Amino acid sequence: MEKTKVAIIGLGTVGSGVARLLLDFGDRTARHAGRTLWLEKAVVRDLEKTRDCDLPAGVLTGNIDEVIDDPEIRVVAQLIGGLEPARTVMLRLLESGKDVVTANKALLAEHGPEIFDRARDLGRCVAFEASVAGGIPIIANIGQCLSANQLLSLQGILNGTSNFILSKMHEEGAAYQAVVAEAQRLGYAEADPAMDVDGTDAAQKLAILAHLGFGARVNWDEIPRSGIDSLDIIDVRFAEEMGYRIKLLAVAQLVDEGIELHVSPTLVRTGGPLAEVGGPYNAIRVVGDAVGELLFYGPGAGQMPTASAVVADMIDIAVGRCPITFRTLELWSNRASRVARADYHSARGRFYLRLTVDDSPGVLAQITQVLGEQSVSIASVLQHEPNEAGDSISLVIMTHKTTEGAASEACDKMSKLACVQATPVRMWVRD
Amino acid sequence: MEKTKVAIIGLGTVGSGVARLLLDFGDRTARHAGRTLWLEKAVVRDLEKTRDCDLPAGVLTGNIDEVIDDPEIRVVAQLIGGLEPARTVMLRLLESGKDVVTANKALLAEHGPEIFDRARDLGRCVAFEASVAGGIPIIANIGQCLSANQLLSLQGILNGTSNFILSKMHEEGAAYQAVVAEAQRLGYAEADPAMDVDGTDAAQKLAILAHLGFGARVNWDEIPRSGIDSLDIIDVRFAEEMGYRIKLLAVAQLVDEGIELHVSPTLVRTGGPLAEVGGPYNAIRVVGDAVGELLFYGPGAGQMPTASAVVADMIDIAVGRCPITFRTLELWSNRASRVARADYHSARGRFYLRLTVDDSPGVLAQITQVLGEQSVSIASVLQHEPNEAGDSISLVIMTHKTTEGAASEACDKMSKLACVQATPVRMWVRD
Repeated sequence: MEKTKVAIIGLGTVGSGVARLLLDFGDRTARHAGRTLWLEKAVVRDLEKTRDCDLPAGVLTGNIDEVIDDPEIRVVAQLIGGLEPARTVMLRLLESGKDVVTANKALLAEHGPEIFDRARDLGRCVAFEASVAGGIPIIANIGQCLSANQLLSLQGILNGTSNFILSKMHEEGAAYQAVVAEAQRLGYAEADPAMDVDGTDAAQKLAILAHLGFGARVNWDEIPRSGIDSLDIIDVRFAEEMGYRIKLLAVAQLVDEGIELHVSPTLVRTGGPLAEVGGPYNAIRVVGDAVGELLFYGPGAGQMPTASAVVADMIDIAVGRCPITFRTLELWSNRASRVARADYHSARGRFYLRLTVDDSPGVLAQITQVLGEQSVSIASVLQHEPNEAGDSISLVIMTHKTTEGAASEACDKMSKLACVQATPVRMWVRD
Repeated sequence: MEKTKVAIIGLGTVGSGVARLLLDFGDRTARHAGRTLWLEKAVVRDLEKTRDCDLPAGVLTGNIDEVIDDPEIRVVAQLIGGLEPARTVMLRLLESGKDVVTANKALLAEHGPEIFDRARDLGRCVAFEASVAGGIPIIANIGQCLSANQLLSLQGILNGTSNFILSKMHEEGAAYQAVVAEAQRLGYAEADPAMDVDGTDAAQKLAILAHLGFGARVNWDEIPRSGIDSLDIIDVRFAEEMGYRIKLLAVAQLVDEGIELHVSPTLVRTGGPLAEVGGPYNAIRVVGDAVGELLFYGPGAGQMPTASAVVADMIDIAVGRCPITFRTLELWSNRASRVARADYHSARGRFYLRLTVDDSPGVLAQITQVLGEQSVSIASVLQHEPNEAGDSISLVIMTHKTTEGAASEACDKMSKLACVQATPVRMWVRD
């Protein structure tokens, strides 16, 4: 049987999983690829470290040049995190004639144009299924399977850490900080989970999907985003009372003016497909003009799910499919169809507003007057009797459809009212 | 821009949709394929019939030889239903050097080996995404995206007509016959829905997925199957009372002895992902040993969803990906890995049993004795007070895990008891 020599750079969690799939289940990849994927080298920084996989003698090396300089190694899974040296290694691999697989969404979101242009110039390809939504093959589905469609919208739960935390807050009624600590104990959150919980990770993934699915060439850090790190458990309770769950949604929506993109904690109706995505799982709802609504659900991270995506990409390169896809899609090229960015403030939707207000007469009248001035129309109001002799109450307002700008402006104005005691909380609502 | 000439055979619902995508949205397919898919010919039986699409002059023809004899037409969407002349046309197209796209699952389930062998001998390829689950790209996902996995199990809602009927029975509490009539009025059921509601359609699709995902070469009519056509509304009500919904599930499950395959009305827990698939939608839950659990959800039929899958296949052929996939997978070849069929009677699971019994002392003792003799252990029993002065009551038993054979044997024995008035109803339960 034909043999394709491959290498792995980085034997962390995912790299070890990839090595295990290649070594322990070689017959399977051989069957699906029509050839053997032969692990020739695995490059690590620290040769002494204990690892999660057994490698045959001679495979492990600390010297990346053993890969670069071996013309027989055709496919490399480059699994270094962060931007550098990941970027430099990526370019060196391409320049030495390798096709490269990566799971590094930060690298693509930041340096996609440079990396993809270089790969095209060199006649090489880059595969990146594992960079978004772990084991869910969303890159292949959008890039290939839906190619007869104009995508109309995409809503994704793309950060497993945030989703785990939100699920726990709903299930246990526990506050954010307590749940983060639990998530860290269980390995679902990093020691510093900032990038996961503040919306950065989801925005980087959304930038990749928006480019792939809508031809939107956008810098990830220009995507309006808020995370779950300031979410109050009281909003979780109010959401539930009204029949919703809070999810961190990455949203792309085609409108007349172009494409709307944002990442925000969002109320989605309980029982709906996105609301039921629990724990560290991811899900992506895609609407295409021909196909209608599709939903993809699966593990958004983890060793073997991510390794599954990486090895599928290695097979795709080895058999020759990926080079075709890469050439055809022309990602991040100047030719790739572009779409204008719609103004975020013009984005239309419903909003959840929570105000902490004085428990005194005339308050609701003042609030509703501000909303009326911004043409924000009220769908429902929730106000409980104050359960303590406190001097404040929570007032929850669900709006009808309005613009982000009007809702935001109304909140600014309300926060200046004497009867409003704190900055209003505002979240998107999707039914 | 490069031009690939294509043809459509059959301008029914799906064929008209394919023509519309090619003609009205040619820029899109050009962008995704890097070339124009040029509709050269559309072959129909009846030139006079009114159609759902406007064709340029010279495209419509009643003579298939205009396609067969045109060597410039490379890709053909062959959208004739049924077995003949679909099979003959398929072979003629392959022999004349065309690559062929089909949505005809009956044809593949019946004549897959012949068609695929012939295509291989001729160096041609056959694409069939639209043959299973309409707009859901399940063929690409299993055949390509999950290639690093050994699939462990697959559970599919693969027949939209049955799912529409079951959803209505649950929502409206209406009996099967009334709902079928409504489904026919709304166009969700054929005038003769037999193949949809008796499990035939789902079994044919399961045969294709089992071959693709597990290497199981199986005749579809050897798959044990029962449909929803004899489902009593009383079982829908009991299922709901116990927290379940009834779905027509196509199941493939890898066990030590090989692969279990069957199509059966099944109780799935309310709130679970398959239970929430409503109306004419399809869904497939797949478990792979590396990736874990994935769920794919979307429209299982309909003009544009199916056309979306057909055109994606045409693009896949035009760019050259499909020929690679076709060669690599070696479907229905003698080389394709095979797996033994596990004995259906040894398949393990929980069961729902409903018995119509005399309302007299000692009945439950007799029933439980029979179950005990078959080592079928009881998880729960539901028996309501008789609400009329009737002489019979319904007794519902949920079993613990047992084998299909034991449950079946127990039902046979119970039906011979004097106190049991009708053939017991038995359905699988999946939590």
